[in-house]
Amino acid sequence: MEININRLISDINRYAEYGRDNNGGVTRPSFTKADLEVRHLFINELKDMDLQVMVDGAGNIWGRKKGSGKKQGCIVVGSHLDSVPNGGKYDGPLGVLMAKEIIKTLGENNVTLDHDLEIVSFTAEESNDFNLSTFGSRSFVGRLHPDMLQGVLDSKGMKLSEALESVGGGLNRYPEMHEKGRDIKAFVELHIEQGQRLESNDISLAVIDNVVGTYRTNVTVTGQSNHSGTTMMEHRQDALTAAAEMIIEVERYCREYEGSLVGTVGKIQAFPNAVNIIPGQVNFTFELRGENELDIKKAVSDIGIIWKWIKRKRKVFIEQELFLDQKPIELDHDLVNIMKETAEDMEEPYMVFPSMAVHDAAHIASITKSVMLFVKSIDGKSHCPEEYSTPEDIEKVGNVMLNGVLKMDRKLPANHPSNKTTAIANS
Amino acid sequence: MEININRLISDINRYAEYGRDNNGGVTRPSFTKADLEVRHLFINELKDMDLQVMVDGAGNIWGRKKGSGKKQGCIVVGSHLDSVPNGGKYDGPLGVLMAKEIIKTLGENNVTLDHDLEIVSFTAEESNDFNLSTFGSRSFVGRLHPDMLQGVLDSKGMKLSEALESVGGGLNRYPEMHEKGRDIKAFVELHIEQGQRLESNDISLAVIDNVVGTYRTNVTVTGQSNHSGTTMMEHRQDALTAAAEMIIEVERYCREYEGSLVGTVGKIQAFPNAVNIIPGQVNFTFELRGENELDIKKAVSDIGIIWKWIKRKRKVFIEQELFLDQKPIELDHDLVNIMKETAEDMEEPYMVFPSMAVHDAAHIASITKSVMLFVKSIDGKSHCPEEYSTPEDIEKVGNVMLNGVLKMDRKLPANHPSNKTTAIANS
Repeated sequence: MEININRLISDINRYAEYGRDNNGGVTRPSFTKADLEVRHLFINELKDMDLQVMVDGAGNIWGRKKGSGKKQGCIVVGSHLDSVPNGGKYDGPLGVLMAKEIIKTLGENNVTLDHDLEIVSFTAEESNDFNLSTFGSRSFVGRLHPDMLQGVLDSKGMKLSEALESVGGGLNRYPEMHEKGRDIKAFVELHIEQGQRLESNDISLAVIDNVVGTYRTNVTVTGQSNHSGTTMMEHRQDALTAAAEMIIEVERYCREYEGSLVGTVGKIQAFPNAVNIIPGQVNFTFELRGENELDIKKAVSDIGIIWKWIKRKRKVFIEQELFLDQKPIELDHDLVNIMKETAEDMEEPYMVFPSMAVHDAAHIASITKSVMLFVKSIDGKSHCPEEYSTPEDIEKVGNVMLNGVLKMDRKLPANHPSNKTTAIANS
Repeated sequence: MEININRLISDINRYAEYGRDNNGGVTRPSFTKADLEVRHLFINELKDMDLQVMVDGAGNIWGRKKGSGKKQGCIVVGSHLDSVPNGGKYDGPLGVLMAKEIIKTLGENNVTLDHDLEIVSFTAEESNDFNLSTFGSRSFVGRLHPDMLQGVLDSKGMKLSEALESVGGGLNRYPEMHEKGRDIKAFVELHIEQGQRLESNDISLAVIDNVVGTYRTNVTVTGQSNHSGTTMMEHRQDALTAAAEMIIEVERYCREYEGSLVGTVGKIQAFPNAVNIIPGQVNFTFELRGENELDIKKAVSDIGIIWKWIKRKRKVFIEQELFLDQKPIELDHDLVNIMKETAEDMEEPYMVFPSMAVHDAAHIASITKSVMLFVKSIDGKSHCPEEYSTPEDIEKVGNVMLNGVLKMDRKLPANHPSNKTTAIANS
């Protein structure tokens, strides 16, 4: 039994027409017109497949295929259909449409699982105008509470609560999601890698065992604004050259670090930002991502020491304000092993590594067994029109996922709920 | 004969009340309400001193004290009364009010010069909302033509031509300025140093022999935007870390350069400027100032070579767009010598160095013999409320200036116009 790769690729291209922009990309953030249209399409197609369709409080779309009933609960496959502005056609849709393809393939081969099988498309996984990425999955697992969402507006003053109602959700229906979560026994998400590790190793598939932790601070470097002509080099307290040295040191440290660690300064602003004034203040964001907490802690401490040395040498002040300290998340050992075994059974080479980005699966992992698969990205590009994975790679990974789901169905115990679900019910 | 330092300091404090802001600074850009008020005050005071007052096409205010008539033409002393937003009380007003103090002192001592003596306050020396700094002096010497000024608007859409009329000027009166310029035989401007060379050497006075050249480019560094988590350090083409290295190298080069050279990156912008995206493009301004053209040329070339190496190493693109290439300006040898001799006669220690900033005198130097004096700035601060020079330093420098003007009056030849004025008349 194999997925129909031509049908899947044609699905991917068909869906990419919704929100197609002038730069050859897909612009389909959640709650936009393009998103409403693609939701309508998707729901209709799930109905045509005889799935039991439901939209939850957060606007997440679910489609359920009944199993034999021999085992309790359901296995969920899916990802998200929203995109960043001028994004590609794979980030998100690949995971949702692969889920649809797997359900179709099973149906065409008259295979009924012991568990119910459910497809999901989460709302607003990408950063959006409400400043709430992985919104659907965080809402679903109870990490975003209706109380705190009540007053949320986008930059144009639109209420999130109204946006939710426009897609069939609603803050009043948040409690139902908790109940639904208790029914999920396993979650599998396929995503493009968005990096180049697979490509560098010429391998199509990665089984993801961990989602990296992310540590972010706002850094303020304060020196002394001064005239760019009259202030001799030795009399300067230039906040920008100090910041430049700090940025270089982040890069050097992370490059030399033995282990999975990346460090980025993505955002920078200088004051007063004038051609003829030595910058007196520079603000920048400092981000570290690492596979384990100790790596991150060590890097924060070591880089802090290096920065202190720069501060002393340059007579500037450095302040940091922590605004994110998200711990690494281990995905489920059993599901990781099932996916590895499936790949080995099929003689499909694979790598095991952490996801350096947070996906919906990282949140769903807090309520149920979860695993992710990555497919090779060409040139590691994502969030841009050039985002691409070859049909050959997608097909290989899709067939591992199909067989992995079948193996999961066989291997998972019949009873339910799992401990994790119980744990979350009390959290 | 000595200036009255108490009267001068009280003048400085009195003028600083016009445009006094909430941050303890002076906010008095040209054409603002505070500027109109201070102009009114200044003109009335010049009239009270029996000076012949005239406002020219560019709104520059002139006040003439008749000499004995033994020598043709006039000696002009002055600076500007406008300030940057939240500036100090010395940058500009010190030079104008010292000129006023010198004329008062001469009057009180019944000294009449052989030349006419004229005070000037130039319009809009500082950067302003019309984007035209040293506006008054550049207009006066013919570097800003009425034709090119006709359409100039400020950020609120106000016409420069109307602003000029509000202060008694007018584009239609620009040709008169040329005629007036032919009458000026020497120009002396006193200014605060805005740097720390005098303070470092514990000297009150500098005689300025040169105004540095300024070279400015807009630099664009292009790398590859990418996800900050999924893109491993070795796969990045980070435009910001590349820019950071380039900025550090500018600083290092200028610090190590033997000679008068400063280099500054004052303005920077990263794209897309998001916490979780590796910057794909960074724009920054690159400025070099140096006392002689060869220094600047050598530095541009050497830094270019270093940047090329960074470009190759980091696989980024670097583009530069030149937007200013102002050559160094030599001030008048004779006037510089007169000032040096005067200081020596008075046993007042002095330094001779170039001005690292452009002042009105740099433009006036294109039509007549010009010289500048600097007085020590405490901590080198300027363009801020903390800008300060001590009364002791101001008094010493003021007395050198007073005696320098007297020596100039004696030493300058009786005839007129000078060659320089003739040269300009044809340019």
